[in-house]
Amino acid sequence: MDDHVVHMSRLSNREKILEEGLKVVHERGFAASSVRDIVSAAGVPLGSFSNHFASKEAFGKEVIERYFANSQTVMRDTLRNDAKPPLARLKEYIAQSKTKEACGGDQGCLLGNLTAETGGAADAMRLRLNEIFAEVGEAVAYCLEAAVRAGELAADLDCREVARFIVSSHQGAILLAKAEHSPAPIARLEHMLFSVVLRPLH
Amino acid sequence: MDDHVVHMSRLSNREKILEEGLKVVHERGFAASSVRDIVSAAGVPLGSFSNHFASKEAFGKEVIERYFANSQTVMRDTLRNDAKPPLARLKEYIAQSKTKEACGGDQGCLLGNLTAETGGAADAMRLRLNEIFAEVGEAVAYCLEAAVRAGELAADLDCREVARFIVSSHQGAILLAKAEHSPAPIARLEHMLFSVVLRPLH
Repeated sequence: MDDHVVHMSRLSNREKILEEGLKVVHERGFAASSVRDIVSAAGVPLGSFSNHFASKEAFGKEVIERYFANSQTVMRDTLRNDAKPPLARLKEYIAQSKTKEACGGDQGCLLGNLTAETGGAADAMRLRLNEIFAEVGEAVAYCLEAAVRAGELAADLDCREVARFIVSSHQGAILLAKAEHSPAPIARLEHMLFSVVLRPLH
Repeated sequence: MDDHVVHMSRLSNREKILEEGLKVVHERGFAASSVRDIVSAAGVPLGSFSNHFASKEAFGKEVIERYFANSQTVMRDTLRNDAKPPLARLKEYIAQSKTKEACGGDQGCLLGNLTAETGGAADAMRLRLNEIFAEVGEAVAYCLEAAVRAGELAADLDCREVARFIVSSHQGAILLAKAEHSPAPIARLEHMLFSVVLRPLH
């Protein structure tokens, strides 16, 4: 019983550190967030951090997974949601990034922010971020392929190439939305994608 | 004479701090670069930093100007260089960002990196970065307008909107090139721009 209580309390502090730490890192940046800032936001003792994470980078990698788990839910509900027409799904996916709740808020996308911060030191984080961008590209390609099959886009579209272009242009638009404190760059991306790059067939 | 020597030596330390400090910040990120790291790279005494900069953010703002001065030279030689055909200038501008020397190297664009790092605290830096992205957009628009006048692009092209889209997509491609440690995302942008977005008239 005692062991169980201790276990639950450890889990709970770990959860608090990840949940509140993610917010701190998203707002201030990874390097600018000290372990002291993170445990203070989580309301747990300083020593708790090293009980749960071997290093700040180990914590950073878990923050990435936590943030990406949320992106995966969004992708399942939009890009990979076969119940809806394909191009509408892509529109919905881009549009949600303009909301304050999503990565298009004034804080930018945490995955893009961390990529910008990864210098030579944080190479494990960079490699994981690169895998994640590829995985997002696959979800966009899945949606574009469905649009081609549905006759919404031309059959000769290079879905994988265009998908990776969309992922990188989306990251750039979110970054400039952060500079501008406005979703206008994301709205511009939407317009260019749906009126020029993915001109509908009918 | 003594005053002059002192003045030159002060200028010189300031120059060293900016020149070497820019490299440190580009490699490690702004928050991750301590004043101690910066003066150590510059080979000047620690106290020299506060003789020349009121704060680390004041230093950061000068680093931005120094980096952007170099971008302006590139823009003058390419986007605004009336001696060359307009679309070739845009191609050259994007292509140079794939070189190791430019922002497309594995360290990303310093302006994009700093944008990603600017949380609530560094708002003066963010505002300046936003102005700079707008200025780059104007140089790209200048080049697109020349391409329209030269008959290289359709007369109804919304040059300013497309220019801002190019700037944000370029930032995203440079960011993903940093994640991938490869210029492939920038090459993909080139292909999409010149084969789809700016389909030549002939």
